[in-house]
Amino acid sequence: MDSERLQQQLAFIAEIDKLKSVLRRNYLVGGARRENTGEHSWHVALAAIILSEYTDEPIELDHVIKLLLVHDIVEIDAGDTFAYDVAGHDTKDEREQQAADRLFGLLPDDQRSELRALWDEFEALETPNARFARAVDMFMPMFHNVNSEGRGWRDNGVTSDQVFDRQKQIGIASETLHQKARALVAEVVERGFLPK
Amino acid sequence: MDSERLQQQLAFIAEIDKLKSVLRRNYLVGGARRENTGEHSWHVALAAIILSEYTDEPIELDHVIKLLLVHDIVEIDAGDTFAYDVAGHDTKDEREQQAADRLFGLLPDDQRSELRALWDEFEALETPNARFARAVDMFMPMFHNVNSEGRGWRDNGVTSDQVFDRQKQIGIASETLHQKARALVAEVVERGFLPK
Repeated sequence: MDSERLQQQLAFIAEIDKLKSVLRRNYLVGGARRENTGEHSWHVALAAIILSEYTDEPIELDHVIKLLLVHDIVEIDAGDTFAYDVAGHDTKDEREQQAADRLFGLLPDDQRSELRALWDEFEALETPNARFARAVDMFMPMFHNVNSEGRGWRDNGVTSDQVFDRQKQIGIASETLHQKARALVAEVVERGFLPK
Repeated sequence: MDSERLQQQLAFIAEIDKLKSVLRRNYLVGGARRENTGEHSWHVALAAIILSEYTDEPIELDHVIKLLLVHDIVEIDAGDTFAYDVAGHDTKDEREQQAADRLFGLLPDDQRSELRALWDEFEALETPNARFARAVDMFMPMFHNVNSEGRGWRDNGVTSDQVFDRQKQIGIASETLHQKARALVAEVVERGFLPK
């Protein structure tokens, strides 16, 4: 055993524990508390397994799962940038690149490259796998909002026009999930939980 | 789109959100709060990616990841049975079988069978993939205890003999991780955080 290598790997595993303390804007189903990014990363990976048949392009599900397990680790340093925060998105790329350098840099070189490549692929949206991963990743906070009376949206003054507009991006990978998202959001608007 | 099928799938995705409210006995790294099973399921899947080279038998990592994403869902109904709770383990199997029937039963038949097969495989420990998944799943709470002054053990009156004995099971799949676990636990004993 190369004990320095294992030491680096365990240091990374300990460091990414912090993802469980990064809070997202959406609430758990039922609204008891805000979701953290660690538990989100599990849920979205499993959702990708369940919903994989709705992809519009052929995908490799195993690879999609890996993309999703890794995609949010940078939030440990960069924080969760709210989807509807225009100003935050101006600095998001730079913050996340620095975070990726530091966090994946804790790993031995081969694994640093491997995880960095997964994150880069997810961000670039240039492969069918990345596009489907992103689509499910966008579907989930919508689904949580739909199941918590839109609370994450209402807390932050988001309008239905903004939500419908954002959900269009699900259509980059799955028209079925995009249409389902539209229908679910329309119900929440109808019930008065999301202002126009 | 078969809308009833998608409805069943979304009902399952909403239901498993409850795994984020199942508390485990170990604490986060640093000890701020107890870990929940949803976030654990993400962390252990990623740890399996990072530590996969230490398996003693050939494994299919993609399959190990799926086993780990699914392995604890039954805790939504059956609760987390503490590793050192002898009485709890008497009823664990029956509680978990019933939980698996109900939870995976929310899915369309083909996916119910697929996820149930993953869970059955994990539990049976008869494949190299399941054994390695279990080894990493046992390594993680030890690692969290080591990184939180043994708090989860001390809360529950666990002794070092019990911990060393339990860690032996990591050796079913990885002697390297077993030896590392022994060394880490010995340090915690040395520092006085785990009674003999």
